[in-house]
Amino acid sequence: MDEFDLIQRFFVRDALPGVSEGRGPPRVHAGAILGPGDDCALLGATTTAAARFAVTTDLLVEGVHFFSDVDPQSLGHKALAVNLSDLAAMGARPVSYLLALALPRADIEWLEGFARGLHTLADVYGIELVGGDTTRGPLTIAITALGEVDPAAALRRDRARPGDDIWVSGCLGAAAFAVREHLRGHPLPASHPARMRLEVPVPRVELGLELAKLSEQGLVHAAIDLSDGLAGDLSHILARSGAAIGKSVGAVLWSEALPSHECLNGLSAEDRHDLMLSGGDDYELLWTAPSTARSSLERLGGLHRIGTLDTEPTLRLRDGSGGERVLPNRAYQHFRSDSDRL
Amino acid sequence: MDEFDLIQRFFVRDALPGVSEGRGPPRVHAGAILGPGDDCALLGATTTAAARFAVTTDLLVEGVHFFSDVDPQSLGHKALAVNLSDLAAMGARPVSYLLALALPRADIEWLEGFARGLHTLADVYGIELVGGDTTRGPLTIAITALGEVDPAAALRRDRARPGDDIWVSGCLGAAAFAVREHLRGHPLPASHPARMRLEVPVPRVELGLELAKLSEQGLVHAAIDLSDGLAGDLSHILARSGAAIGKSVGAVLWSEALPSHECLNGLSAEDRHDLMLSGGDDYELLWTAPSTARSSLERLGGLHRIGTLDTEPTLRLRDGSGGERVLPNRAYQHFRSDSDRL
Repeated sequence: MDEFDLIQRFFVRDALPGVSEGRGPPRVHAGAILGPGDDCALLGATTTAAARFAVTTDLLVEGVHFFSDVDPQSLGHKALAVNLSDLAAMGARPVSYLLALALPRADIEWLEGFARGLHTLADVYGIELVGGDTTRGPLTIAITALGEVDPAAALRRDRARPGDDIWVSGCLGAAAFAVREHLRGHPLPASHPARMRLEVPVPRVELGLELAKLSEQGLVHAAIDLSDGLAGDLSHILARSGAAIGKSVGAVLWSEALPSHECLNGLSAEDRHDLMLSGGDDYELLWTAPSTARSSLERLGGLHRIGTLDTEPTLRLRDGSGGERVLPNRAYQHFRSDSDRL
Repeated sequence: MDEFDLIQRFFVRDALPGVSEGRGPPRVHAGAILGPGDDCALLGATTTAAARFAVTTDLLVEGVHFFSDVDPQSLGHKALAVNLSDLAAMGARPVSYLLALALPRADIEWLEGFARGLHTLADVYGIELVGGDTTRGPLTIAITALGEVDPAAALRRDRARPGDDIWVSGCLGAAAFAVREHLRGHPLPASHPARMRLEVPVPRVELGLELAKLSEQGLVHAAIDLSDGLAGDLSHILARSGAAIGKSVGAVLWSEALPSHECLNGLSAEDRHDLMLSGGDDYELLWTAPSTARSSLERLGGLHRIGTLDTEPTLRLRDGSGGERVLPNRAYQHFRSDSDRL
């Protein structure tokens, strides 16, 4: 099986098993003038004249971003989901994606599962693979996702302002809990909600589109998706926004307002806060907004106001009695030490 | 050093060593409204209303695509060059690129060299990194390159027609010769022209733009870049073009017209043909054109007419006495066997 066959057979959708190059031209997919199989994909025009393409790339490496025994369908899902989460965090509508895949051998069953995971999620948003590259090597997945957004509505990281409310979607900490249990030698069952959050995260694409509408009206200022842990991801907003206005932007988070996932219920408050603030892999959105946006945001449902921005140069956690402690910037850092995350 | 610092310090250009997040907003680069550091890059508009974005991704894995002891600057150059070669093969003007990089550890000297290789080549085309992702893992480089091209001028693989001339740029076989010598235990010196061809290939971007102009006038039909070997790459054109018109498209190559690199001069004809037809890593362009294009193409200089297309279902090599042999489709196939190429 050669490289072309791998892409054609598993990742291009209307190629039935056994159909290889030469039996018919690949379908031209939504969003592309020319899809996989040429030197490049050619993207179509954006749907409106004001829209522009948003583009992001994420790399998943076996043993760093996922356990070696992960189900291939879940892995296909997650590899695309983390990129769609970046599009969501920009308020962009997904358009198409490219896949660069290194794998140790052409394992048919694995490839079928992996492709099924990609395709099932891609179908939710009506997007297709428009290009790719496969090679032999240690299992590594690099997806590039393309979306479109009007720059006037785009959810940037650098537009947060002191006085903003801090909001987050959904519940936090479940994926980090699943990782912790795995590392402690008693992995959760595959159907456990926390493992589902870790392995089959749902990117907040629709929410991102709603927030982009509010952003255009000045009702959302800055946004990011939660991949490395709330504290570290929020710190990126603080740093970039502070740089943009030339002074400190800091934050207070209210510990009792943090929406912990129900699977954390039996844990100590300290454990729950640690998993929510530093755990990562939540793939929820975090954003800042002026207080005038509260009623609009509350109408969307399932969102949580968890703190405020100020002009202190730190990120602090405030407990119910008003006590505050400064949080270290503990975003997951791949190069911080020799120890693996997984 | 965290992930953000890696991108900011080594790959974003106006970040001087030691300048990290928060000290100032990243420059917004040519072709992008919003560059690295946010969830996505936002691309600008194309330079003309008719132009569309071309996008391609290529993955380079240590031990598969490059030797472990390769100079990091050369590797940075090559990782971008192979993607620009895909843009050239589409007739697209480079606009920007994204980098997804897995590396075993944050080795400052290595990163500086790798970044220098990327930047030096990027400067030739005035393009910049607009997004990226870095992680710990086996050394793997996935670059996504974006270009722009008018779809009416784009150099597709599926437009070749029986009767077309086959053309190729430059000289072939040198990179494959360097690989062969390395595998035989006597690697060529770093400054040897064959090793330069292997490690520091020059993407044929300007030629691609010239061919796109001719394509718009119907004077170039189909094109591909030579990455896996002339025979295999030409086979892609034959297969896709045959599928597009619903009948066989085959080719005859004239052995004495194949432009072998001067470093192959001492080799037997069989060795030279093998290196030129199956060796790969040439990163020259191959295209087909009607005979009416000959004078236009000859004016460009340095190009070679090496055969013709017909309606046979095979690819053949014709020698000086008129004898023909059918060439197997021997493009480099990563999954064909357990043996490494390098």
